[in-house]
Amino acid sequence: MNEFNFIDSLKKFQNASSRVVRGIGDDAAVLALDGRWYQLFTTDMLVEGVHFTLKMPPVAIGHKAMACSVSDIAAMGGIPTCAVVSVGIPRRVPPALVARIYQGMHSCARRFKVSLVGGDTVRAGALTINVALLGEVEKKYLVARDGARPGDMICVTGRLGGSFASGRHLTFTPRFKEARWLVQHARPTAMMDISDGLAGDLRHILKASKAGAVLDERAVPCHNGVSVLQALSDGEDFELLFTLAPARAKVLARSAPFAFTVVGEITAASHRLMIKDISGKARAVEAKGYTHF
Amino acid sequence: MNEFNFIDSLKKFQNASSRVVRGIGDDAAVLALDGRWYQLFTTDMLVEGVHFTLKMPPVAIGHKAMACSVSDIAAMGGIPTCAVVSVGIPRRVPPALVARIYQGMHSCARRFKVSLVGGDTVRAGALTINVALLGEVEKKYLVARDGARPGDMICVTGRLGGSFASGRHLTFTPRFKEARWLVQHARPTAMMDISDGLAGDLRHILKASKAGAVLDERAVPCHNGVSVLQALSDGEDFELLFTLAPARAKVLARSAPFAFTVVGEITAASHRLMIKDISGKARAVEAKGYTHF
Repeated sequence: MNEFNFIDSLKKFQNASSRVVRGIGDDAAVLALDGRWYQLFTTDMLVEGVHFTLKMPPVAIGHKAMACSVSDIAAMGGIPTCAVVSVGIPRRVPPALVARIYQGMHSCARRFKVSLVGGDTVRAGALTINVALLGEVEKKYLVARDGARPGDMICVTGRLGGSFASGRHLTFTPRFKEARWLVQHARPTAMMDISDGLAGDLRHILKASKAGAVLDERAVPCHNGVSVLQALSDGEDFELLFTLAPARAKVLARSAPFAFTVVGEITAASHRLMIKDISGKARAVEAKGYTHF
Repeated sequence: MNEFNFIDSLKKFQNASSRVVRGIGDDAAVLALDGRWYQLFTTDMLVEGVHFTLKMPPVAIGHKAMACSVSDIAAMGGIPTCAVVSVGIPRRVPPALVARIYQGMHSCARRFKVSLVGGDTVRAGALTINVALLGEVEKKYLVARDGARPGDMICVTGRLGGSFASGRHLTFTPRFKEARWLVQHARPTAMMDISDGLAGDLRHILKASKAGAVLDERAVPCHNGVSVLQALSDGEDFELLFTLAPARAKVLARSAPFAFTVVGEITAASHRLMIKDISGKARAVEAKGYTHF
């Protein structure tokens, strides 16, 4: 049972509330705020021994805990605002180390203008950090996963793969600036951050948008020393995956103030993900995507 | 180092944001919402082996995870609205047990009209549940910890002590109805939920309000078989502790639709907590209050 099965099973537990615009199933929940803005709400838990070890730099662990949530808000087109942080701390972990984790968290928060407004500190057997983050997005800029249409270009920022092996999963920069530029200038039809690998996350967009896709193997931007299969399936790149109408993709190519790559095209075939190899032959993508669970 | 030391140390990490009305240091953070309402934001983490064991009924564990946060919102005078839930799940825990925990969480959420709008599910060595909850409170009804004034009556709902030993810590009802009645009819000057024991939590009010207090040992409402010392120091009662102007206390005694007890009086002596015994003699309270940390 992976994360998405569980989150699907949570859906039946949603209650109707006048504030809920979109509930479970995207990078963040969407809540009514005022005439012009939506509020966004997301939560991320990191666990020692699963997402990090205490041999890693504590400032980077704190950075990651905040950056994951900032990335979720960015992926909806939004601006992060206020966070509450719960930390479970084993007796064996010295307070000085915890303080450095907080420093990393705060440094990331400051960079993205997030206010740390509350917290809970408890005992735990393994160091555990949960960041719950609010954000805001202009209604007209909200992007979800369900708007990809056949013919849309599939794009990614940066390069993919090898995030764990390289340590990039601890030090990544959430693509907040890029996401805000995109919603303001390029109207992406769907967007999310790549946390489970390009193939796995594209499947979430395809499922939500009831569409298929063809990726171009030669186009996938891999980090040095990383295979296309790794780029498709490694987790925690935290780059943006987005789709655009073809005309918009051309504008983007001319004017975007950041690197991005067109890696394929949305197709009509429901729920199927294909990849074209160097010879131009398309086959079904086997890469499963990293599952955290 | 206890929870409050840590949360104090977090304060220096707060950023200024236009939305933040009150940050770290109360049951929930207070954020600007609109002309009439504030938004409230709180987070609570429960860890297997610390706050519960898997020998306890899973539905009750889920109930408690949501009820703790509802209690925080209620203690500010507010109405809970939307929650995001992170769950860390060990491989050894069967999905059916996790589903029953979710059922307990949802049942509590439904009872208090909370929408579960998002979640994160990760692997962990110990079952870990984090609930981050939003709420709303009319600006005129907001109650914090810092408004207690000398002469105010100190009151508690229900009975205290023995929450762990009796299992009440898993099945308690957050005092939402009582808190809303209080803010609408009795204007408490300070309020919080009793999670660390009457003495420990009253000290938080005294510190925030820069006041002292005298408790009346004979007045402390103890559960059957529980000593006054336990009632002062046991954790997780989740009753309301509140202070009222004396005139208001009289109105409350006549009209409140729930049981409450006057247990003492706020005094001017800064940061000192005294208790009068049966002979009428006052001594300093030794009870430390339960620390989760």
